[in-house]
Amino acid sequence: MSTTEPAGADGRGPLSHRRQVHVSWGDCDAAGVVFYPRYYAWFDASTHRMLDAVGLDHHRLRRDYGALGTPLVRAEADFKSSATYGDVLTADCRVESIGRRSFTVAHRLSLGERVVVEGREVRIWAEPGADDGPPMRVAPLPPAIRAILEGRPAEVREP
Amino acid sequence: MSTTEPAGADGRGPLSHRRQVHVSWGDCDAAGVVFYPRYYAWFDASTHRMLDAVGLDHHRLRRDYGALGTPLVRAEADFKSSATYGDVLTADCRVESIGRRSFTVAHRLSLGERVVVEGREVRIWAEPGADDGPPMRVAPLPPAIRAILEGRPAEVREP
Amino acid sequence: MSTTEPAGADGRGPLSHRRQVHVSWGDCDAAGVVFYPRYYAWFDASTHRMLDAVGLDHHRLRRDYGALGTPLVRAEADFKSSATYGDVLTADCRVESIGRRSFTVAHRLSLGERVVVEGREVRIWAEPGADDGPPMRVAPLPPAIRAILEGRPAEVREP
Amino acid sequence: MSTTEPAGADGRGPLSHRRQVHVSWGDCDAAGVVFYPRYYAWFDASTHRMLDAVGLDHHRLRRDYGALGTPLVRAEADFKSSATYGDVLTADCRVESIGRRSFTVAHRLSLGERVVVEGREVRIWAEPGADDGPPMRVAPLPPAIRAILEGRPAEVREP
Repeated sequence: MSTTEPAGADGRGPLSHRRQVHVSWGDCDAAGVVFYPRYYAWFDASTHRMLDAVGLDHHRLRRDYGALGTPLVRAEADFKSSATYGDVLTADCRVESIGRRSFTVAHRLSLGERVVVEGREVRIWAEPGADDGPPMRVAPLPPAIRAILEGRPAEVREP
Repeated sequence: MSTTEPAGADGRGPLSHRRQVHVSWGDCDAAGVVFYPRYYAWFDASTHRMLDAVGLDHHRLRRDYGALGTPLVRAEADFKSSATYGDVLTADCRVESIGRRSFTVAHRLSLGERVVVEGREVRIWAEPGADDGPPMRVAPLPPAIRAILEGRPAEVREP
Repeated sequence: MSTTEPAGADGRGPLSHRRQVHVSWGDCDAAGVVFYPRYYAWFDASTHRMLDAVGLDHHRLRRDYGALGTPLVRAEADFKSSATYGDVLTADCRVESIGRRSFTVAHRLSLGERVVVEGREVRIWAEPGADDGPPMRVAPLPPAIRAILEGRPAEVREP
Repeated sequence: MSTTEPAGADGRGPLSHRRQVHVSWGDCDAAGVVFYPRYYAWFDASTHRMLDAVGLDHHRLRRDYGALGTPLVRAEADFKSSATYGDVLTADCRVESIGRRSFTVAHRLSLGERVVVEGREVRIWAEPGADDGPPMRVAPLPPAIRAILEGRPAEVREP
């Protein structure tokens, strides 16, 4: 059901992921098409699956990298066509850009050749705040994380 | 939108709560009626609102009573009639029974006189486990919690 | 990701289905475990997938059998243990009993040998009502549907 | 819980709406903050509530205006700060712009003075397609609908 393509491993580019999404009855609204917030839930799940596949699951982000997580600061989507229950969508995502303290994941869900939705998530690297401040602060992406997102996992040394 | 009736305060019985639920477009499935898992989400929200209204929000359960929460061990519902977007349901819940380590909350959602769904949740009192065991254990309900659930908050001493 | 076992085909019993469910970050609540209404969404999706696999998708139920669908009249679940994001659950369901106008689907989600949740859905056979009455009425299960649910698809004649 | 301000009625501008959103336990993810797709569900519900309040509920859109609905073609959000269970957010929306065949609704959810999320939805006016084509087509906004969105309901004649 899910194949991971840490694309950069063979020089093809940054981290990416492909999986299938089965559209359920309960994903649809009264018009019989996917209720649009569900697409964002699938975006989020795809990003997590992509990161999990290279060892960056939430548990490890916390334990090994001291991160609180990769919270969203922005999400957007263009709904190109509709999908309904029974459809099996191909969900592709890839790291589109990497900033100093954030990275962007581009998403596309398709039904065969037809694009259903395209969008992106902008996520930040969050670490615990200082004792006397807010509980979370935005922090620079660690070099090891950056290398993984860029598809250069071979260059990653254990933290 | 929400009125709390700590019913036992005037001798009428155990803790209860009433609120309104606006059925949204996205709560409905492709048949145009509420997708049934949503009713359980409303049950859960009603129980939390009922407990919040008497000071037993999740933060305080943890801080003042050492609880991890009140996780579900069972939930059931009978779907009597349907509801659709635009409907404004009356959501009633009340503590139906209290055991040594668990309590049951009965729920009813109605549209005017018509019952839409009736159900119940069985919840346990969960505390952190011992260091060398599982992270959670079922524990007896503290007397102060029991008094609040029974609608005798006046008899509750601060923990 | 999904295998269908129309079990009765080889005499093993009524219709059943097995699939995997990947628990996502967004399926979990603030305690880090699956928010319980999600289990019911998976029950519902499993039932649909089981029926789809033997040709009883919603479109065909309507077109070929004149049904409005198989709405729920009851659902229940016992939560045996917890699951969290990253877990890959095995979701089993099977037709447990068949009445004159309803049928019951038993569900179990497991993580390896450990049972996470067990429950059941009771569904009715719904057809359009008469012109001067309510839009839906409960109707007897057609013999062809009953045969499929009982795992005797070979005996099903096209409607 | 909900007040509607058909702002243009007194010359203040286009259609708008304000309501409160109670953040539930089940709206939050394992980090204890709102799972971001929920914000879009609240955007969608706010838009529906705003339209309902001026008589443009989905039933009437279909019956009186021949529309299939106002499906999304784009949605975006900037997440400014987090919210958690127990928070009571103020959800504001207003018609931000009106095109020939689409309109944009701007959304903001706030906790007191603090902005939690800002975003927008772009929606089209959809009518049934011709018999020999796709089931839906984008169509020009009817003048009566445009007048309502612009906050000039007094100028609306019944369709």
